[in-house]
Amino acid sequence: MVIVMDVNAGEAEVNAVKDKLTGFGFQSYLIKGVKRIVIGAVGDRKSLKVLNLETLPGVKEVISIMKPFKLVSREVHESNTCIDVKGSVFGESEPVLIAGPCAVESREQIQAAAYHAAGAGASILRGGAYKPRTSPYSFQGLEEKGLEYMAEAAEQNGLAAVTEVMDEHSLEIALNYVDMLQIGTRNMQNFKLLKAVGRCGKPVLLKRGLSATVEEWLMSAEYILSEGNPDVVLCERGIRSFEKYTRNTLDLSAVPLVKELSHLPVIVDPSHGTGKRELVSPMSMAAIAAGADGLIIEMHPEPMEALSDGPQSLYPEEMYTLAGKIEELSRVINGKLSPAVV
Amino acid sequence: MVIVMDVNAGEAEVNAVKDKLTGFGFQSYLIKGVKRIVIGAVGDRKSLKVLNLETLPGVKEVISIMKPFKLVSREVHESNTCIDVKGSVFGESEPVLIAGPCAVESREQIQAAAYHAAGAGASILRGGAYKPRTSPYSFQGLEEKGLEYMAEAAEQNGLAAVTEVMDEHSLEIALNYVDMLQIGTRNMQNFKLLKAVGRCGKPVLLKRGLSATVEEWLMSAEYILSEGNPDVVLCERGIRSFEKYTRNTLDLSAVPLVKELSHLPVIVDPSHGTGKRELVSPMSMAAIAAGADGLIIEMHPEPMEALSDGPQSLYPEEMYTLAGKIEELSRVINGKLSPAVV
Amino acid sequence: MVIVMDVNAGEAEVNAVKDKLTGFGFQSYLIKGVKRIVIGAVGDRKSLKVLNLETLPGVKEVISIMKPFKLVSREVHESNTCIDVKGSVFGESEPVLIAGPCAVESREQIQAAAYHAAGAGASILRGGAYKPRTSPYSFQGLEEKGLEYMAEAAEQNGLAAVTEVMDEHSLEIALNYVDMLQIGTRNMQNFKLLKAVGRCGKPVLLKRGLSATVEEWLMSAEYILSEGNPDVVLCERGIRSFEKYTRNTLDLSAVPLVKELSHLPVIVDPSHGTGKRELVSPMSMAAIAAGADGLIIEMHPEPMEALSDGPQSLYPEEMYTLAGKIEELSRVINGKLSPAVV
Amino acid sequence: MVIVMDVNAGEAEVNAVKDKLTGFGFQSYLIKGVKRIVIGAVGDRKSLKVLNLETLPGVKEVISIMKPFKLVSREVHESNTCIDVKGSVFGESEPVLIAGPCAVESREQIQAAAYHAAGAGASILRGGAYKPRTSPYSFQGLEEKGLEYMAEAAEQNGLAAVTEVMDEHSLEIALNYVDMLQIGTRNMQNFKLLKAVGRCGKPVLLKRGLSATVEEWLMSAEYILSEGNPDVVLCERGIRSFEKYTRNTLDLSAVPLVKELSHLPVIVDPSHGTGKRELVSPMSMAAIAAGADGLIIEMHPEPMEALSDGPQSLYPEEMYTLAGKIEELSRVINGKLSPAVV
Repeated sequence: MVIVMDVNAGEAEVNAVKDKLTGFGFQSYLIKGVKRIVIGAVGDRKSLKVLNLETLPGVKEVISIMKPFKLVSREVHESNTCIDVKGSVFGESEPVLIAGPCAVESREQIQAAAYHAAGAGASILRGGAYKPRTSPYSFQGLEEKGLEYMAEAAEQNGLAAVTEVMDEHSLEIALNYVDMLQIGTRNMQNFKLLKAVGRCGKPVLLKRGLSATVEEWLMSAEYILSEGNPDVVLCERGIRSFEKYTRNTLDLSAVPLVKELSHLPVIVDPSHGTGKRELVSPMSMAAIAAGADGLIIEMHPEPMEALSDGPQSLYPEEMYTLAGKIEELSRVINGKLSPAVV
Repeated sequence: MVIVMDVNAGEAEVNAVKDKLTGFGFQSYLIKGVKRIVIGAVGDRKSLKVLNLETLPGVKEVISIMKPFKLVSREVHESNTCIDVKGSVFGESEPVLIAGPCAVESREQIQAAAYHAAGAGASILRGGAYKPRTSPYSFQGLEEKGLEYMAEAAEQNGLAAVTEVMDEHSLEIALNYVDMLQIGTRNMQNFKLLKAVGRCGKPVLLKRGLSATVEEWLMSAEYILSEGNPDVVLCERGIRSFEKYTRNTLDLSAVPLVKELSHLPVIVDPSHGTGKRELVSPMSMAAIAAGADGLIIEMHPEPMEALSDGPQSLYPEEMYTLAGKIEELSRVINGKLSPAVV
Repeated sequence: MVIVMDVNAGEAEVNAVKDKLTGFGFQSYLIKGVKRIVIGAVGDRKSLKVLNLETLPGVKEVISIMKPFKLVSREVHESNTCIDVKGSVFGESEPVLIAGPCAVESREQIQAAAYHAAGAGASILRGGAYKPRTSPYSFQGLEEKGLEYMAEAAEQNGLAAVTEVMDEHSLEIALNYVDMLQIGTRNMQNFKLLKAVGRCGKPVLLKRGLSATVEEWLMSAEYILSEGNPDVVLCERGIRSFEKYTRNTLDLSAVPLVKELSHLPVIVDPSHGTGKRELVSPMSMAAIAAGADGLIIEMHPEPMEALSDGPQSLYPEEMYTLAGKIEELSRVINGKLSPAVV
Repeated sequence: MVIVMDVNAGEAEVNAVKDKLTGFGFQSYLIKGVKRIVIGAVGDRKSLKVLNLETLPGVKEVISIMKPFKLVSREVHESNTCIDVKGSVFGESEPVLIAGPCAVESREQIQAAAYHAAGAGASILRGGAYKPRTSPYSFQGLEEKGLEYMAEAAEQNGLAAVTEVMDEHSLEIALNYVDMLQIGTRNMQNFKLLKAVGRCGKPVLLKRGLSATVEEWLMSAEYILSEGNPDVVLCERGIRSFEKYTRNTLDLSAVPLVKELSHLPVIVDPSHGTGKRELVSPMSMAAIAAGADGLIIEMHPEPMEALSDGPQSLYPEEMYTLAGKIEELSRVINGKLSPAVV
């Protein structure tokens, strides 16, 4: 930690900082520049949160050197974490494919979706039963009935299932039906919910918040790990920017960046990341080439009839074509080509 | 609503759109340009959510003309809504002043804070008992004990009290202690929580999400109103931008903009909006001059000892000075000067 | 300066950094943490640019403590710089009012504009003769003819004149006609042009770039000062954000922030900053309350006929009303109320 | 074009709009909704710029249906434009590789760079002689001497050369030495310069502005084409966002999006796009997988000694490895895998 003192800070103020540091067991070093005094300090990270040096008189800035995350950090855990969801493993060489509709709309719809997802080579079925919608007048999901349909469809087609939970109530119910729980972008900093999934015993898919920095995203994963659940798969799904032609700006550089900072697997959602069907395939390819551990793709048996996200949902035949290409690309990337290790 | 057809769309595709519109009770009008066909449509807004025209073949874009919010819209409710919190009225000419620490830290601390808040002329005490913190290792609040201390301090000093709720559990407890409930920036799109405060019978302070558009913010208010609670005070608290010298970018233009679009009162949080003590006073003045119905300001009896947000908390004496200036400015603004009516 | 070494950096790498620092005349201090080594260094800022420590093996991050600007910094020049443009002084207690149309469209139009600007109490006339337009098919300005009209109109009404220059050619011509040169938002980092106005001998109005940080903006001012021209007035005019209801997001917190970091005057452009006529007045008031040294406002004798920026241009009568309010507010702000000194 | 009238607009105001439309040769259609009147209009795009309907009383919003760009639009020119730079063709199946240092620093440095660029399989050498630097105290380039060294190095190694021009002066000089002219991100809306390169007769590499929308970027290309130069290669180089771990946020979705909207080739700059050497290789792979027509990569013979951009410059050996992988990936992508055609 580095404490930058104000230009006008006097000896008394410098000493107050040093004393506080000493009191909390830190060692400190004085660096006298021409214009400023800077204090370097070394000690236990845990004490950092209560030091509050910024509030002392004469302190201009406190610069933290250590990253604030710990359990999710690659410094603490060097090798990749691999997460097994009913036989699909995130974090190994083969990318995991998750596919399915935005929302479970009916028994028939999710069965058709599961059939095509399995046919295309996906191993996990996605589908929303509790939907966070911007408008109170939009379709809000079939709730538990939707989960029943989904679990049935997944089982019949040999797939695992993942669904979004919005609060502790929907979490409790979902635990009876699915194999993996999704925390959506709007709940990335719903800390009560993060703690709850941290105690639930099932793998968690943690989407990046709409305008979350990579550091904040990893801190949210830290919440889950700190409650005892090590099985967190991160999911980049587009950030908010000024661009108007796409729904979001898919930040693929987050993939190799997260892999450098953390041992957790990271996948990509090109459907929400772009909001446009015609961009889903090229961005899926790009995600795999960037080193992603998998993809979560919206596919609807009849996008024209979808109750939500129709314009960004693939047709089943597009999904088949894309899955074939992903497989081929992945073989190349994980054979001679391995960008993550460059 | 305007439907823009693809350049290559044929008669069959145009007819399919017209038929769907007719089926849902819409009237449609064909506009043939040199390059494109555009269809204008008029009908009941409620049907819009299920039309899903974007998914029909040949449709390039659907442009909505109506704003998506209804109950919060000034088109529906022309005059200002005034909201009474234990005698303090948001939406009238006098701005309401809310002051207090980021978090309730101890009985003594909140009592001192309440004493100074009342002394400076604030009528509502703020203080967090359930704290949403980016790091799981940061101070998370005193929970119910904090609310007890806060209610006591507010009462002894003739103040109302407002606190943030993070989920239905903390909401239920808070209802026993405070007069107004705050939905924090990270929960602006926690729709379950919005519905819950929509049924709770007490006024709600709804902070704008970190990267929420004004439209999304108003849609979140719509959630609360649609559950039967008309008493929502909006709070601008800074949006996320690329600027690094301030914690957030305070978007004061949201004040007159919200007043044009909606009948709800809107206040400003210059403490989180800037993150720097020395910017709080000038931005408070600016907020009032822009037409804000009040301010919520972090003030701590001893900012140097604050467990959170010390660098952006005012000292009590700064609060006294600022409150005096606000009062004087407000008299001028609401006398001859009234920017909102220009 | 603080150099953070990689977790795995060895003694050789640390020594290489220390040797390079010594070679450039820096003193260095070693701080050994539990996990990392950090090196503090003190020396001449000028050498910083050639040190390139980031590129040495084992160096993880180099954190600069000093701000990169010098001549514009309040650390170097404590008192406010006051800039006189034909008798109007930026940086004193009275705010300077600049008004006029987006573009000079005709002799009659700019004369009417100048008449109303003077009538309302503005002391400087604005008007574009060389227009940077997003589309090559939009009106590009009357060029030198426009400057002739403008100079004539300004003189007849006792006003100074400011106009935007786009390159060295338009700069040379403009010098014959106007009293102040504007660098527009798109040219804030046109460094050749910055150097040219730095040598031109007239005051410069430097608009903030569309997505420039405050630091980058001040560095652009540094370019002008470093060429020998001390007369730079900064102008906040809105930054780019995700919000769609306004053209830009006016960042008023930049006003007190710039005043803290720099001795240069700073004014606000609420017309481009919002893009909406109805927001111009409230945001003008807010700007003055935040401590701005002036305003530059688009006003057109007939906004309905404007060739550009009609929707954000005030009608003359709105300008008269606003100017009256500004005067009154300013008297209050600069009397007992002075937010910048809080 | 669709004109949305105000809720309170009366017959007179509607008629005024219709009359103006008729006067400019537009056909108009009235659509009466429950709450609002909307007017559809069809006519010649060229007249749009002078209509200024937004300024008429009673007009709430004017929504343009046509994209504002024309010459660069795929609607006007369906097939891909291929651009030949001394035998390297942008827009065909094989991606073009541009490599070299940020700045030409010496004769030896650029010769070593050219040697390695050619060795790795690049066909065009990059190198800056006129450098736009945020600080006036940073290295500003060797100017004409640098171009001499660069042209020599390129020729000796069988490479073409591209360099950035900053104004008409540097453009004139550069025309004597290089085969392609780069417009940098800070000059994307330097319209005088765009017009100048539009008349220069050589291919142009147009970088996307730091916070430019895709539409604004294409409008800048439109400037160049409208002056008669059809040879514009677009270059995505990262946009500004709130993320702090990377220098910029590389927006790869711009690649397939631009290819949908325009016939011009588009390449990617992963060096500036990320600012971190370790992210360059994975993002290069991702760019090619997304369908990019080429890459421009910073490579320095000795990044540790680089005068600028050292931390994001590849070592020659990294360049060799990456180029091999790109070639293999490209064979796969352009064989069976072609994301752009999905």
